[in-house]
Amino acid sequence: MFKVNENYLKLPGSYLFSTIAKKVNAYTAEHPEANIIRLGIGDVTLPLAPAVIAAMHKATDEMGAKETFHGYAPDLGYEFLRSAIAEHDYKKRGVSIALDEIFISDGAKSDSGNIGDIFATDNKIAVCDPVYPVYVDTNVMAGRTGEYEEAAQRFGNVIYMPCTAETDFAPELPKETPDIIYLCFPNNPTGATIPKTELQKWVDYANANRAVIIYDAAYEAYVSEEDVAHTIYECDGAKTCAIELRSFSKNAGFTGNRLGFTVIPKELAFDGVSLNSLWARRHGTKFNGAPYVIQRAGEAVYTSEGQKQTKEQIAYYMNNAKVIREGLTAAGYSVSGGINAPYIWLKTPEHMTSWEFFDYLLETAHIVGTPGSGFGPSGEGYFRLTAFGTYENSVEAMKRIQELCRG
Amino acid sequence: MFKVNENYLKLPGSYLFSTIAKKVNAYTAEHPEANIIRLGIGDVTLPLAPAVIAAMHKATDEMGAKETFHGYAPDLGYEFLRSAIAEHDYKKRGVSIALDEIFISDGAKSDSGNIGDIFATDNKIAVCDPVYPVYVDTNVMAGRTGEYEEAAQRFGNVIYMPCTAETDFAPELPKETPDIIYLCFPNNPTGATIPKTELQKWVDYANANRAVIIYDAAYEAYVSEEDVAHTIYECDGAKTCAIELRSFSKNAGFTGNRLGFTVIPKELAFDGVSLNSLWARRHGTKFNGAPYVIQRAGEAVYTSEGQKQTKEQIAYYMNNAKVIREGLTAAGYSVSGGINAPYIWLKTPEHMTSWEFFDYLLETAHIVGTPGSGFGPSGEGYFRLTAFGTYENSVEAMKRIQELCRG
Repeated sequence: MFKVNENYLKLPGSYLFSTIAKKVNAYTAEHPEANIIRLGIGDVTLPLAPAVIAAMHKATDEMGAKETFHGYAPDLGYEFLRSAIAEHDYKKRGVSIALDEIFISDGAKSDSGNIGDIFATDNKIAVCDPVYPVYVDTNVMAGRTGEYEEAAQRFGNVIYMPCTAETDFAPELPKETPDIIYLCFPNNPTGATIPKTELQKWVDYANANRAVIIYDAAYEAYVSEEDVAHTIYECDGAKTCAIELRSFSKNAGFTGNRLGFTVIPKELAFDGVSLNSLWARRHGTKFNGAPYVIQRAGEAVYTSEGQKQTKEQIAYYMNNAKVIREGLTAAGYSVSGGINAPYIWLKTPEHMTSWEFFDYLLETAHIVGTPGSGFGPSGEGYFRLTAFGTYENSVEAMKRIQELCRG
Repeated sequence: MFKVNENYLKLPGSYLFSTIAKKVNAYTAEHPEANIIRLGIGDVTLPLAPAVIAAMHKATDEMGAKETFHGYAPDLGYEFLRSAIAEHDYKKRGVSIALDEIFISDGAKSDSGNIGDIFATDNKIAVCDPVYPVYVDTNVMAGRTGEYEEAAQRFGNVIYMPCTAETDFAPELPKETPDIIYLCFPNNPTGATIPKTELQKWVDYANANRAVIIYDAAYEAYVSEEDVAHTIYECDGAKTCAIELRSFSKNAGFTGNRLGFTVIPKELAFDGVSLNSLWARRHGTKFNGAPYVIQRAGEAVYTSEGQKQTKEQIAYYMNNAKVIREGLTAAGYSVSGGINAPYIWLKTPEHMTSWEFFDYLLETAHIVGTPGSGFGPSGEGYFRLTAFGTYENSVEAMKRIQELCRG
């Protein structure tokens, strides 16, 4: 008689963004006239850059002709893309990453969920709190956590590292030593970063304790301040302790194109077993590559045209971030983020819970945001808005919020 | 101190096709003049159908314009694609599958590896032997098997169901009751099928024993005989015991496009826990959908033009299969497969091992095939050739093999 993976049953509800989508759908079904502004899910709205579109058309034509057709991709992804990554994302920042340390994937969500496969079940994880829910949820599924504790709104056997106004939204080195440390900078959802000097302390800590850092740098392209690292490998010693996850979703608007990559330096090993080779085995056995057309699209991001065009997109979103930051501040909210990240993090007013504020904002202003508590217990009482909407909607949303204050 | 998943260390070498690629690369590096014919990996060679290419161009244009841009896809995949699947792959065969029982993915390789996530580690699996290595390898990674037994060339705690000339390449109901049964028809690598009446016996067996069948129907489009089922749901009672995996790789040449889907009927449950809801949770948490452009490409396969064009491709490959079957038979080989599948399965001559024959064929005829032993211990002494090459190469390969016999 077959048995299911009962770890799944520990998960309290559906995935955060599925819940939000259901709530919004129910609301719009009842209020079809409501002009909803969606600043909830971190999805981009600008079309793909012209350089990317041109590359996709060209690659599509290649797929339609016998001489230039491409079947299965190489295990690690096409070399043209891995070379562009090694050059632009690493070499230009003074970091040397070999081509076989880069694994092309269908996105950082898959990678951040799947990377757990190569670790033993009895590793103890540490996560920033709040943070992208995929880290904890996928570790729950893998049996690496205890039960969900309803009162504390947290899972047993997980080290939560609070990142609140009290800690300036940065995690402190944990008292209990973890085996796997998830770090995400610029952080989703708070938009917070830490200076490179602080990141270096985490690298030193991981090396000293033989912990591994899973460093999610999906929002790297939004870093605007000089003292913030773009890759963890800017820190000394990171190659012996850190895996880096990257995405094309937010720097080039690939949320509907699906492309990302994971870097695992060959120096990163446990008892002589290289994590690079374990991941290569997983990649080769359970995955068959990102589509050729999409890998060519990714390559186009690194051309000079592609760089110019995607930087303009980021500037557009960061202008929205400014509008939202300033609008919320003017409306009397306590706000952080939005400087090195497209996320604005606000304290809910009048001791509302995050979900109370979600309902309030949806019902009174027809604005969809994301409840902070969905990202972890320390997110309770906070709320995330994203800068990925249109400029017009960002302005309109702030107008509505300011009217609410006055009303 | 972090620890790796030691189950990975049980795997004896690299993934089969990675090993082959390395061997061929080494050979061609030494013999750059050799005109290698690749009938090894099951990769297609015909370009994508014009209807598919047109859909990809159109979708690319949509991604390049603000009004028609698509970000994150719905969790289960776009409804336009799931509707086309429900209609063409199921309703037309008298099977009713609801849209929320279909999960769009990036391919059957990912799905056949990832599906194990929703099952407990202590389930015992049964596999046809030989079969697609991903089933066993991914269960090894998950800790569901024992150690690799070098002498027997098999993993402990796995029920191998021999499919050899002695069993007419069909599995027999196992003596020991498994919890999870992997079936793949038309089979990779043998090309064998079983009649629908025989498949019904497996469904009845699974229901009687509360086992779950993971039915890989990636080669369904190649079924030419009337009495062979195209989907397991043609069998009575399959909805309470079977998950079906499907792919666009072989019916429409999507190996470089990456698209597949998994069907999990809502009736399939364990102790009141629906496998459909567990997979939905995994899909929503660890995956972010196939690219929009690729899902539109998949939709185009189901248009009348797309159907006509892809059927022509299949006919082309099946003509190759005929050339190879007849060529090998004329050269004195014992051959099976190639009727309902693009795979031809031959007995190695003169008691050569599968890898000995691989080297022999590569060195003397410059033909790359796949050693049968790579698919399981009962594949030893067999060898797989695929019909996915060009017609000219299939003819040339047979010429070379026939010359070898005379030589």
